[in-house]
Amino acid sequence: MNYKIRSIREKMKLLNIQGLIISNPENIRYIIGIPVEGTILLTDKENVFITDARYIEEVNNFLTINDEFIIYDNKDVSEEDNQTFFSDCENVGFEENYVTYANYENIIRKYRIRNIEETDRIIEKERMIKDEKEILYIEKACEITDKCFEHLLNYIKIGMTERQVAFEIEKFFLDNGADGVAFESIVASGENSSKPHAIPSDKIIRFGDPITIDFGAKYKGYCADMTRTIFAGEVSDELQNLYNYILKNQLRTTKDIKEGVSCKMIARSVENDFYLYNYTLIHALGHGVGLNVHELPILSHNSQSILKENMVVTNEPGIYLTGKYGIRIEDTIRVGKLESEVLTKSSKQILVVDAK
Amino acid sequence: MNYKIRSIREKMKLLNIQGLIISNPENIRYIIGIPVEGTILLTDKENVFITDARYIEEVNNFLTINDEFIIYDNKDVSEEDNQTFFSDCENVGFEENYVTYANYENIIRKYRIRNIEETDRIIEKERMIKDEKEILYIEKACEITDKCFEHLLNYIKIGMTERQVAFEIEKFFLDNGADGVAFESIVASGENSSKPHAIPSDKIIRFGDPITIDFGAKYKGYCADMTRTIFAGEVSDELQNLYNYILKNQLRTTKDIKEGVSCKMIARSVENDFYLYNYTLIHALGHGVGLNVHELPILSHNSQSILKENMVVTNEPGIYLTGKYGIRIEDTIRVGKLESEVLTKSSKQILVVDAK
Repeated sequence: MNYKIRSIREKMKLLNIQGLIISNPENIRYIIGIPVEGTILLTDKENVFITDARYIEEVNNFLTINDEFIIYDNKDVSEEDNQTFFSDCENVGFEENYVTYANYENIIRKYRIRNIEETDRIIEKERMIKDEKEILYIEKACEITDKCFEHLLNYIKIGMTERQVAFEIEKFFLDNGADGVAFESIVASGENSSKPHAIPSDKIIRFGDPITIDFGAKYKGYCADMTRTIFAGEVSDELQNLYNYILKNQLRTTKDIKEGVSCKMIARSVENDFYLYNYTLIHALGHGVGLNVHELPILSHNSQSILKENMVVTNEPGIYLTGKYGIRIEDTIRVGKLESEVLTKSSKQILVVDAK
Repeated sequence: MNYKIRSIREKMKLLNIQGLIISNPENIRYIIGIPVEGTILLTDKENVFITDARYIEEVNNFLTINDEFIIYDNKDVSEEDNQTFFSDCENVGFEENYVTYANYENIIRKYRIRNIEETDRIIEKERMIKDEKEILYIEKACEITDKCFEHLLNYIKIGMTERQVAFEIEKFFLDNGADGVAFESIVASGENSSKPHAIPSDKIIRFGDPITIDFGAKYKGYCADMTRTIFAGEVSDELQNLYNYILKNQLRTTKDIKEGVSCKMIARSVENDFYLYNYTLIHALGHGVGLNVHELPILSHNSQSILKENMVVTNEPGIYLTGKYGIRIEDTIRVGKLESEVLTKSSKQILVVDAK
């Protein structure tokens, strides 16, 4: 059986559920391996994928006998079929963090479920550890992101707007084999950089501005996530000092990230250092990256996760001085047994782009 | 009071709910008028918008005394505040088609709600009829889409891939003042055009191919939606006949679309005509367009909606001959009292693009 399904079925035993309904598209893509619409039903008897005419052929070609999936066209699934799938299941799990309340009610009616059970992100937890192919796709997404950054260093000029730079990122990704952006790029210059989630505006990049660029390509569904803060024309001593202080924390964290370390301790270590210097870390230090740009685990003081080999996480300390400016430095990192590998390889030296 | 809130409060009376929790971002954008994150609480006493530091200033600047909104920074809202908002409400409504089951449980706990009630898309139904500003934005989105189509007629050449054309659409929108694409463009050539929801592929556009392009710009959050089927190099008599047959239905429907007409009857009329000629309409004839590209009303045989002035809907009959080809022609239309206005103005004549 597909190793992903086998592992999910083991977790189902622990939750004492005999059936599971999977409807979150990213979870389906994770299990099936290609982007197709439908619903996966794991019953006590079989693995079922209900899709429609648009995808049947593709799914049949892609899945092998090893996957042990029975594939249905939804137009061939009768009301009675639906009521039979889970007829021998005492408890059936569902994705309570994805399914709307209205669909929750539909599901119970449609499949005549006796006991429906919350599953606490059962699939999302499986997705934390990436396999070889997933890592390959993330590496490729990071590679395109790095290339784009190199391009931006020549492209960005004083007098351009933030929005222009954001457009250029999207164009570059599309022209260089990516699916597109993994998330809406942040390009925040000068005062705007003091907002961690600034939206690219028509503000013009001025001499002396720090420019925070938070961006990432998506490749075959998998995301990269990188932030660099660069400087327009010149960089003041004040900005250099703050930059180097954040970089020191970012580099130390990268060394800390490896199998067996708790996400909470990693985040606390940066928080404590910031505290000593009178700064505050106002967002999580990092998060998992995969089919979603934000996924499990979270690297923050209230995380319960322990890092494991082949998790892929970000490391993104940032300091934001309201009304002045902000600096953030972020990499996407594959967790290793003894040391981890930084997948976004762009320079983290202080970089100054052309004055005109 | 903001006319939208006043109208929603009237509907709340009909549903016998004294409070309402609004969390769907498009519904919040509709009510507040700008894209901001947060939660709207309508209680029996006041209109509350809970947001965070990122948006407070912008919201305060944008809203006027007329809006009668009390704005909170979520970090200033205590557990007790949350338990007080609805303390005098017998029944509190929520968006059961947006809120996940997990959040539904959170909401009840957090606000100590006595009776929670489903509201059957209360805000989405309000959004069906557009005001002057909304129509202006949709018109602008349609205008950019038309310009893009004109550009494509020169740009598309035999030998290009579908994906190249889809990229060009996105670039054109970004370069011409749009927020971006309203939805992932469909560019389906030759046999691919027989799939109504084909994803742009690396298939090369060949001499004689029909090319179905379903695309639309987004402007200040509002969508356009247009489909044209054009032809590469030449168009066979068979394709011309099918094209003209679909166009005849599309034009008749445009005449039918006006205030007071039932969506069901409009769809049935096309379905019946198709039936006479041995074709089947395999998707809805149309749908509302606004902040979402697909919204209410639906123009299909099981719709209960009646068209009203200033609804904006699509009219998109299509025929798909599996393994051969497909043709669809779609406009975005503003419903008028006596006649409607087609907002996407690109030519619907048979158009043949260059042979090389």
